[in-house]
Amino acid sequence: MSISRKVEEGVIASSWAVRMFEDQSKTSQVKEICDFRLGNPEIEPPAGFTETLKAVVQNSSPGMHRYTPLAGYTETREAVARALSKESGLPFHTKHIIMTAGATGALNIIFKAILNPGEEVIILAPHFVEYPYYIDNHGGVCTVVETNSDFTINIDTLAAKITPNTRAILINNPNNPSGQVYTGENIKAVAELLSEKSQKFGRDIFLISDEAYKFITYDNVTLPNISKIYPNTFIAASYSKQLSIPGERIGYAAANPGIKDIHEVIEALTFANRILGYLSAPALMQRVITHLQETSIDITEYTERRNIFCNALEDFGYSFTRPKGTYYIFPKSPTDDLVFTQELAKEGILVNPGRNFRRKGYFRIAFCVKKETIEKSLQGFKRVKDRFRSAE
Amino acid sequence: MSISRKVEEGVIASSWAVRMFEDQSKTSQVKEICDFRLGNPEIEPPAGFTETLKAVVQNSSPGMHRYTPLAGYTETREAVARALSKESGLPFHTKHIIMTAGATGALNIIFKAILNPGEEVIILAPHFVEYPYYIDNHGGVCTVVETNSDFTINIDTLAAKITPNTRAILINNPNNPSGQVYTGENIKAVAELLSEKSQKFGRDIFLISDEAYKFITYDNVTLPNISKIYPNTFIAASYSKQLSIPGERIGYAAANPGIKDIHEVIEALTFANRILGYLSAPALMQRVITHLQETSIDITEYTERRNIFCNALEDFGYSFTRPKGTYYIFPKSPTDDLVFTQELAKEGILVNPGRNFRRKGYFRIAFCVKKETIEKSLQGFKRVKDRFRSAE
Repeated sequence: MSISRKVEEGVIASSWAVRMFEDQSKTSQVKEICDFRLGNPEIEPPAGFTETLKAVVQNSSPGMHRYTPLAGYTETREAVARALSKESGLPFHTKHIIMTAGATGALNIIFKAILNPGEEVIILAPHFVEYPYYIDNHGGVCTVVETNSDFTINIDTLAAKITPNTRAILINNPNNPSGQVYTGENIKAVAELLSEKSQKFGRDIFLISDEAYKFITYDNVTLPNISKIYPNTFIAASYSKQLSIPGERIGYAAANPGIKDIHEVIEALTFANRILGYLSAPALMQRVITHLQETSIDITEYTERRNIFCNALEDFGYSFTRPKGTYYIFPKSPTDDLVFTQELAKEGILVNPGRNFRRKGYFRIAFCVKKETIEKSLQGFKRVKDRFRSAE
Repeated sequence: MSISRKVEEGVIASSWAVRMFEDQSKTSQVKEICDFRLGNPEIEPPAGFTETLKAVVQNSSPGMHRYTPLAGYTETREAVARALSKESGLPFHTKHIIMTAGATGALNIIFKAILNPGEEVIILAPHFVEYPYYIDNHGGVCTVVETNSDFTINIDTLAAKITPNTRAILINNPNNPSGQVYTGENIKAVAELLSEKSQKFGRDIFLISDEAYKFITYDNVTLPNISKIYPNTFIAASYSKQLSIPGERIGYAAANPGIKDIHEVIEALTFANRILGYLSAPALMQRVITHLQETSIDITEYTERRNIFCNALEDFGYSFTRPKGTYYIFPKSPTDDLVFTQELAKEGILVNPGRNFRRKGYFRIAFCVKKETIEKSLQGFKRVKDRFRSAE
């Protein structure tokens, strides 16, 4: 075999995941395909982004495409640090921010920086498909902990899985695929647990928060500020969803100023960004997002889509928690999730079965699509639900 | 300790390497610093790049900042494949090309795709400082083989280091730091050796060529086409030097159509690009470089700098091979390379000691700087050389 055995297994195990990023399916045979599998937003970036990009490109300056500092332009990191300080009241400075190739790049440099071979990282199911790979990339061992039925964090279940070998807990808030947003109380309980276990085992356990969907919350739900709640935190953030520019690969890792050995941690993150081959985040986008810390897509666009979808699904009798954040709905599947998604596919409706996120019996709808697509799909959702009503 | 032990060692061992990418030294005390440490080109991108970038941004189209396919836009990969087919006469198609975050991203996905834990990759000294990290990132073991005194590949030395566990040989052509360009004959001898060893050990040994400096060759020297010479090849390429845009992180990995199991290999590369957190190369730059396959910086700019520098160094009595490619000169150090670079520093001249590239007794000059900087430095190079003349 020409390729790595582990990679071979991965390719086979997650071939479906490719379709979460790009649609390669042959859909020509069905007239109207409604594809809700992809977390790839069809909403255009805000005018602020487009205008800033044009301005940066028009007013080009010498050296603007050269290597940037490994951690990113000082001006860019300053802008991020200012925004995080304002939100948290904590002394985030330039040095605490490393610009990265999106939140996925941020997570990879964080794991590279902190993990020794065989150390454990806990993730919460259901979870984003890529997390176990990110942990394995850097020699870590992934431990999966189930969440409650409403996808909040169960402190007892989590406590039972923490060992002397646990290096970090990774959370995703707002959560893909469930749409849940953990409350401050839920995070505080996690923090207390981690403090207690850190003390018990004599080593700080990190709390890493993937906040890729930070700017997408509904009904005035606010994201708890993890940095204020627990000192040993990393944030993996991205402009992908905030500005609807996931193709441009721009985000950052933020290390809490309260982390012990913070200087070494920052050096390790920068080193990881370098040796993993990223070197730095793309220069042009660093310049653009410097000016866009508080700019985001119009959330009412997503709110409207969420409401149309949720109201209809409710009417049809689907059971689900209305998402507080993200652009995903994660309803219970009226039957086996693989069977059910196949039934939906017969109606030209494509969704991801819950097992893809390690929670069988559910399915994920990504509603970051054109409103017409949602409207077109609704009767199909109704018909398939009705087919399984008798079986319930 | 809060960070990974291996990363901690790496940070300490290679803190100097940071200065190859970004100048963090405090230089205010010396009036005129001539910094030749950085491979970060001061030559501006060609007009073709700037115009194409402006045009792409001005004529924005819906969805242009969404996730691209994991391997890159089809149109972009087609353009690369066409260029490679034209050069090689081989059937490179879209599928053989994966767009990456520069050549550094390409090397990382290649190693991730092919290496099982403990498998060996041979690199040739002197070498780019990052290679051992890239190999280690993915569980490989790095074996260093010395090159000849003129930095060409010594087939016997190489042959002696190939084991049943050797998965690949990595070459860098044109070579950083030596400026050498391997000839077709040299590469053919490597290919014959690899064919023989592959047959002996019953498994194909890959030849990986980092061609980041492909477009920077002098005196009508042409780069041998590795793909034509040996079927089991990967090319790691970049637009960083070709277009003087290293900050934008755009390049590609090309898999030779003649590789056995080519379909699996391509899937593995795409999977690696995804799970290493790159996901894909930046969307905007993919669009831009699609149209710039044959555009490059004006090589006469570098030729002029090389000639000024080499003529002067020759006059001063430095011993070196005039570079056939890249923007580096790698002269013999008249004394211990660390001592000598410190003496140069006293004159305000900053260069890298050869030991940083695992070849003591040499030093590296990066001449991708303003012509004035070179001219200003020359008398300093003369003075320091004269100081060590008696010692020779």
